[in-house]
Formats: sequence, C-alpha cells, structure tokens
Amino acid sequence: MSYKQIIYNTPPAPAIDPSLSSGTFRVHTVPQPDYVPADKVLVRAHYLSLDPAMRQWLTAKRSYIAPVERGAVMRGQSIAQVVAVGSKLSSEYQVGDWVVAYSGWQEFAVLGAKEAEKVIVPPGGRPTDAMSVLGMTGLTAYFGMLEVGQPRAGDTVVVSGAAGATGMVAGQIARIKGAKRVVGLAGSKDKCEFLVRELGFDTAVNYKDADWRKQLKEATPEYIDVFFDNTGGDILDACLARANRDSRFVICGAISQYNAAKPQGPASFMNVISQRVTMKGFIVFDFAKKYPEALKELASWLAQGKLRRKEHIVPGGLESAPQALVDLYKGANTGKMMVEVAPVSEALKAKL
Amino acid sequence: MSYKQIIYNTPPAPAIDPSLSSGTFRVHTVPQPDYVPADKVLVRAHYLSLDPAMRQWLTAKRSYIAPVERGAVMRGQSIAQVVAVGSKLSSEYQVGDWVVAYSGWQEFAVLGAKEAEKVIVPPGGRPTDAMSVLGMTGLTAYFGMLEVGQPRAGDTVVVSGAAGATGMVAGQIARIKGAKRVVGLAGSKDKCEFLVRELGFDTAVNYKDADWRKQLKEATPEYIDVFFDNTGGDILDACLARANRDSRFVICGAISQYNAAKPQGPASFMNVISQRVTMKGFIVFDFAKKYPEALKELASWLAQGKLRRKEHIVPGGLESAPQALVDLYKGANTGKMMVEVAPVSEALKAKL
Repeated sequence: MSYKQIIYNTPPAPAIDPSLSSGTFRVHTVPQPDYVPADKVLVRAHYLSLDPAMRQWLTAKRSYIAPVERGAVMRGQSIAQVVAVGSKLSSEYQVGDWVVAYSGWQEFAVLGAKEAEKVIVPPGGRPTDAMSVLGMTGLTAYFGMLEVGQPRAGDTVVVSGAAGATGMVAGQIARIKGAKRVVGLAGSKDKCEFLVRELGFDTAVNYKDADWRKQLKEATPEYIDVFFDNTGGDILDACLARANRDSRFVICGAISQYNAAKPQGPASFMNVISQRVTMKGFIVFDFAKKYPEALKELASWLAQGKLRRKEHIVPGGLESAPQALVDLYKGANTGKMMVEVAPVSEALKAKL
Repeated sequence: MSYKQIIYNTPPAPAIDPSLSSGTFRVHTVPQPDYVPADKVLVRAHYLSLDPAMRQWLTAKRSYIAPVERGAVMRGQSIAQVVAVGSKLSSEYQVGDWVVAYSGWQEFAVLGAKEAEKVIVPPGGRPTDAMSVLGMTGLTAYFGMLEVGQPRAGDTVVVSGAAGATGMVAGQIARIKGAKRVVGLAGSKDKCEFLVRELGFDTAVNYKDADWRKQLKEATPEYIDVFFDNTGGDILDACLARANRDSRFVICGAISQYNAAKPQGPASFMNVISQRVTMKGFIVFDFAKKYPEALKELASWLAQGKLRRKEHIVPGGLESAPQALVDLYKGANTGKMMVEVAPVSEALKAKL
C-alpha cells in the first residue's frame, strides 16, 4: 500500500509551471505507514484548499510565513477524514471524524492533534465550510472588513477579487453591516451577475471590459470609503484614484502581482496624501484570539441565509492541484477553489 | 507707485518652466492701492515660503485644496510687515507688525484679518520661524510624526527628504521622543553630515550614492518601524522593502513624483501585507484644533536648544521665486527655502 505526495520541486520563474515531469512540483509515492504513533492520527485528505497566498510561499523572501522548502511536501490545508487513531488520542478522535488538516498536498498524512482540527458542523453547514466560509477564508474576510476596513453606515465599499472565496464573503459582510453601497470587481460577466443576483452586491464591474475604469467611476458616485483589495496592480490603482477622504484601503492580497517578474505599485499613490487614505495590510493569524467569536457570527449568518457560500471543486485527484493552482491565478473559479483528492462514499457525501 | 505679482500662466508639462517670458509663471505689475478698506491691512512681503506642495496646486485634479486658477496670483505664504491698517483693525494691528500672510507671490497685498496672522516671537525665536519650524512646516512634522507615526521607545525611525524643512524637524522630534535610532535620507554628502553633526541623527544615507540601498539596509539592522516619507518613488520602495512588522509609514509628501509625467507607485507594495504595514496619508490642516498646544511644545524645544532650525534664503526678489521653486524640486536647499522679496532695514534685521 502506498500513497502520493506532491513535492515542491523548482522555484517558479516567475510563473508556476504545472508540468509534473519538469515543473514547479513533482509527484512522489511513499508507503502507507504500518502503524500510527500514540499521539498522532492518520488522516485521508478528501478536499485540498487552493489559496492565492500559495504562490508567496514558494518565494524565498522575508514574509509572514517561512517559504516551503524545496523537496518538501507542498503546504496546504485539507478537509480530511480520520482513518486511524493513536492510542493516546482515542478519547479525542474517532475513525470517520472530519478534520481540517494541515496535511499539505498528499493523500494521507500522520498528524498531531494541533494539525488536525475536528470539524464541528453548525446547522446549515457542511464539513468543507471549515476550509472556506467558516475557515481561514471567511475569517480573513471578517477581520479584514470589520477590524481593518470598518465600514460605516453611508459608506461605499468596493471589493476586488469579489467572486473569489474571500472577496465574496467580504462584500456580503459589508452588506450585512449596513454599507450604503457594495461594489464588486470581478473578471467575467457571469461572475458579476452572480455577485449582484446571488449575493446582493449593488453592482459589479468586469475589469476585463475595455471601459472598466469608467464603469468603476460610475459605480462609485460618492467615491470609495472602504476598499478591500485582493488583486493589487491596476485595480488598486484605479480604486486609489476614486478614494474618498479618510478612506480605508484593506490590503488583503495582490493576486495580480504574485507571478509578476516586476511587481507594480499603485501609480495613483499620491492620493494617499490628498485624500488622507489609510492603507493597511493584515494577516488573519494576527486575530487568532478572536476566531471563536467571529466563527460564531459567521455561522449564524450562514444559518440565517444572510451569508451565502460557493465552492469550485476541481476533480481529478491530487495530481490536478498544480494546474488548478495555475488556474486560480487566472481567475477560473467563482468561490472557494478545492481539489477533490479522493471521492467520498455515498454515505459520506450525504453528510457533506 | 506700483508693485509686482507673479501670475500662474500655463500648466507645467509636467515640469515647471521658470522662464518669466514663456513659462509657467509671468510677472504682472499693478498699482499700489491708494486706500486700505476698513477691515483690511496692507502688508509688504519680505520672505516668501517655497513648499514642495506647490507643484500639486498647479495640477487641476481632485486634491486636498483647489488648484490655483490660471491667471491668478500664485498661492503662497509669506512673512510680511504691516504697512497700513484699515480703520476697523486699528486695535489689532500696528504698522510694523510682522505677520504670516496668505499673500501669494506678490510684493504687497491687501488682506483680511484671517489672512494675516500676527507673529508672536517666542524666546529664542525670530519672525521667519512662523513660516518654518513654528509654522506649517513644523506642525506638519509634529503631527505626522507623533499622531500618524507614533514612534515608541526601541523604534527605528527613518525620514526621507531629511534635510528639507519638514524632514529635519520630523527627525529631531523622533529623537526628542526617544526613538532608538533615527536615520535620514538626503541627497548630498553635506546634507548627510549636517543631519548627523548638527541635528543628532544617528546616521544618514545619501540616496545619490550608487550603493544607497545597501547603506539603507546597514543603517536599519532592525528594520524600519516608522518611515516619514517626503519623497515617494524609489526611496519609499526601498523603505517598504525594509519595513518591520506593524510599522507605520507616514505619507507626508512625494516630491520625487510631483513633476513626473507617469508617477511611480512603490513596487515593494506586497510587503504592506506580509509586514502588516499601515501607510497613512495626512494633511496638516486636519489637526488645526491642536495647533496651539503643538506650537507651544515646538517653541519650548526651540528655546531649550533641543530643536534646531535651518533656513535657505534665496536672494533676488520676487522674480527669483519660479527658479527657486524648480531648484527646490532638485534639492538645492538644506532647511526651509524662502525667497527674499524685499530686503529689510538694518533695524528690522536686528529684530529678525
């Protein structure tokens, strides 16, 4: 018995090469462990989380987290199921439990208790939510919007990457909290329609339209009070040009720049001075103490139908992860992107 | 009897053209007023303030202040002397009083009481201080450093444009408030030596040296906690690359970009996320309610010798202002740049 891992092979230069024979990653096969240490569990990954931050983890620069080492299993979260429990953990886990696993990109993993968080599925929820709307993605949107952006009644809130996993939650939170106007920026007509029809955004602008800057201007007649940025680049620049006085620019991500050989700063930077803009970067980990209360609120919005989630599940097993990651940077997804590592049985599917 | 004004003639494209025959400005001669309205004073400008912000006032874009209209007298402060007083203001002004005048670029001006603030010279001070260390320049440094930057004990504070009027005060305030390390960036060896020898900066880096980025790195072994930016461009970019976690970037000015056809944003922008940087723009006017207490503290530091000032006075009368403004953007000055519009008598000089 053996299982597969995906190993970080060579640094992107600067784009990720999804080829498994000569690219950024390679497949490695290892034997199944024949026993589970007393303080570990053996888990089987079913859904792998794909996150824009992953590209940064492959760059050996000072950052908020150490880069992945070449030759190591690619870092990542998964929704996994416990298949064997070490003797000291038998009161904590049962075979069949769903966990959020810090497993990395592999089919199975032997993990300590801190690396395998049991999923408690709230009413109306499902296990995969723990990796999206009720996980890091939702928490990132929550703290970024509420602690950093601080929308007030009457505010115009703009979200870039609004059809992505974090963006769509951020926009909905602004809506729930009573922003006057919530505007999304996304990369297709379908995504824009989804934001308005399904998620209650007031309007959405397709940044691939030739006249998107004009559309953005028309969508923000009272300028922008809060900008929740997932993209950086030209979109950040255009939003700075529309910054209102004393506006808050929440710098969550810069997906347009992660694969750039020469990252591009916002040219309209001088508006930071004239409009007294606050631009603030943040990392969700900094708010760890407040996770429980945030998750409670997110779960209650989900249960009440105020907050809607969407998943984009890529089939094909572990080996589809590299190409899916490339596609994530191309904006292939609407909502949380996951790779189905292993199909679940019908009985499990019902639970999901 | 007549006097001269300097009129805003044609928009810079994008650099200021100092020629008075075909450039950005032109000279206009007007008759001396033959009477002073009851609620006005007639003042004579002696020293004109030259400020980096002036270039922005010539751009017809949304900003913190309306642009100067073409055909109008160029906007600017001066240190002026009252030469005639309207009947209703006789209890407030005497002929010979020094005032900070919102006179614009002209030799004489008829002003209301709000546009001519009487200068109260504190112990150890002189009238021109009201336009520099005890005026908008000093206040900008004060609020930018203390309210926006908020240096703490142990912090490394870096100031760009450190030999300029605002930068030199900002750095000295960080020193007074107990920053661990104060580093200046300036554009010549002489300026750097001045910062260290005369003003107590720990070190200074000449950004015109080929290896200035390396010098900056060596000057900030514990990274940068507060960056007070007057320059933008490459210097802001290099400082972002050295940003410490939770650092504050005070965006006061961007002199390197004001004349740029294509302004340049900071390429190292992604560090805003990974290091959780707060970048905040501000305009000194927003702190107007706190001016009195700030001026009191600045004056006391000046009197105690903790805060040192330096002036760069350009001779040649009003008509030297356009060239002096061009030279300001080239970094010709160390300290507050002023144009001597009219010489003062020996008696007045003694008072100055």
